[in-house]
Amino acid sequence: MKTYLDCIPCFYKQALTAARKSGADEVRQKEILDEAAGIIPHFPMSKTPVEMAGAIYGMIRERTGEADPYRAEKQKSNRMAMELFPALKRKVADSPDRLLMAVELAIAGNVIDYISKEGLDLRDELSEILTMEEESITREARRDFDYDSLRDELRAASTVLYLADNAGETVFDRVLIEEIAAFGADKSIFYAVKERPIINDALIEDARFCGIDETAAVISSGSDAPGTVLSLCSEKFLRLFGEADIIISKGQGNFEALSGAPGPIFFLFLVKCPVIARDAGCAMGDVILRKGHVGA
Amino acid sequence: MKTYLDCIPCFYKQALTAARKSGADEVRQKEILDEAAGIIPHFPMSKTPVEMAGAIYGMIRERTGEADPYRAEKQKSNRMAMELFPALKRKVADSPDRLLMAVELAIAGNVIDYISKEGLDLRDELSEILTMEEESITREARRDFDYDSLRDELRAASTVLYLADNAGETVFDRVLIEEIAAFGADKSIFYAVKERPIINDALIEDARFCGIDETAAVISSGSDAPGTVLSLCSEKFLRLFGEADIIISKGQGNFEALSGAPGPIFFLFLVKCPVIARDAGCAMGDVILRKGHVGA
Repeated sequence: MKTYLDCIPCFYKQALTAARKSGADEVRQKEILDEAAGIIPHFPMSKTPVEMAGAIYGMIRERTGEADPYRAEKQKSNRMAMELFPALKRKVADSPDRLLMAVELAIAGNVIDYISKEGLDLRDELSEILTMEEESITREARRDFDYDSLRDELRAASTVLYLADNAGETVFDRVLIEEIAAFGADKSIFYAVKERPIINDALIEDARFCGIDETAAVISSGSDAPGTVLSLCSEKFLRLFGEADIIISKGQGNFEALSGAPGPIFFLFLVKCPVIARDAGCAMGDVILRKGHVGA
Repeated sequence: MKTYLDCIPCFYKQALTAARKSGADEVRQKEILDEAAGIIPHFPMSKTPVEMAGAIYGMIRERTGEADPYRAEKQKSNRMAMELFPALKRKVADSPDRLLMAVELAIAGNVIDYISKEGLDLRDELSEILTMEEESITREARRDFDYDSLRDELRAASTVLYLADNAGETVFDRVLIEEIAAFGADKSIFYAVKERPIINDALIEDARFCGIDETAAVISSGSDAPGTVLSLCSEKFLRLFGEADIIISKGQGNFEALSGAPGPIFFLFLVKCPVIARDAGCAMGDVILRKGHVGA
């Protein structure tokens, strides 16, 4: 997805939030906003918003010396989501279509960064996911939900690449990954996280804490933008990206980075940004399970 | 009120909105955002947000050649609000405390720019004001509502300066001004609008269209910022500002501009901005009738 003009005010807002999160005082916060004003006008709008965001967060990291401002928040999300893990597993086990329920839960888990940003209570909101009934996601919010294709392609796939989004959400990913592992043909599953701290995105330590490594090989994509930007990814990752039978891309950041990319990609995310909603032709709050373009 | 860091992303957002409203194409919109990035870092944060906004809107006016992008919207607001005028007058006439009802309606009319910005239906929202019952504004939203002081000072006042906010809202101002004229001592009332088009702020033509000039002398403050910035005001206005027995300041923009100013000012506004809410020590949605500082 290209960068839209509406992303620009949002970059400044994110810069201010990240500066505060990194412990910058007001003078430093202002310097960071001023420096962003020096960077942003020179950024090519044809690039993806996550590339620009990556550059801005990198600048803030250098200015403040704080490498991982969201660390405590990520750990809290992991812990709280892990408390739910047994109940999530039961919910899947009790469902007539286990894979569908696991997919729905994985997308529901994508609400975590939104909860953090809006200052909502994580425990309350996550518990609400548990009370989610079969088909509880309204038909309207699921107008862009191609579960049949995902199920059919997963059945035959032997190599699955799963692109992580946020910490905490990793627990919901684990639930889905465990269903995928048990579904259809024998599989090798790879769970790709970011190379180094970027906002509340999952890292290798988050994936391990949440037990993903029991079922999937946890790897870094090489990207330290808040999305899997292929030009930033490692060769090893790119090889896997090219060879996987199916790629599951979680979250808006990965959609921004990969909506134009070739490959058998399924995008799973909640629509939480009006610019993405417009680009993707959907509405705020929609639950998306969309197959990307195949071929270049 | 000083400018807060949170105002900065909002300036960029406003610049983009105004650029679009002024008919700029996408290339020009980007140039305007880039030029804003050249201006904003050099703006002293000790100044008020409306001064910065005034500079940005001025730059957009020069860049696009569009002097009055909100003209059609202002005319529509005027017309729709005028349709309500007879009903507003009846509502006041039927009230046990006419002045209080007129004050409440005048503040309710301050919702107009919010309605425009959020794309809500103006006719529906204005009609809702009419169904407003006595004391319908909840006690909680009125915790900062010093009606008694306003009433007592208005009773004795002989010179009243009323600072306008948006077009359309002028009709609600007229209702209050007609009550003020009939309340207590004989009065000279001055209704001060902006010097030239700035967002949807009322101009002399709006005040006249809405019939304010039947009761008050309509004057320009001299300020073309979206608030009455004293350093931009004319000498004639400043003399009046210094001599008035009471100054009624409508809207957030005038609060931003004058919250630290001396004089017998009463601020009447709805709280629609989280930064102003924090500065003023109130909550979003609050209905404010607050006496300002008297003396320098």
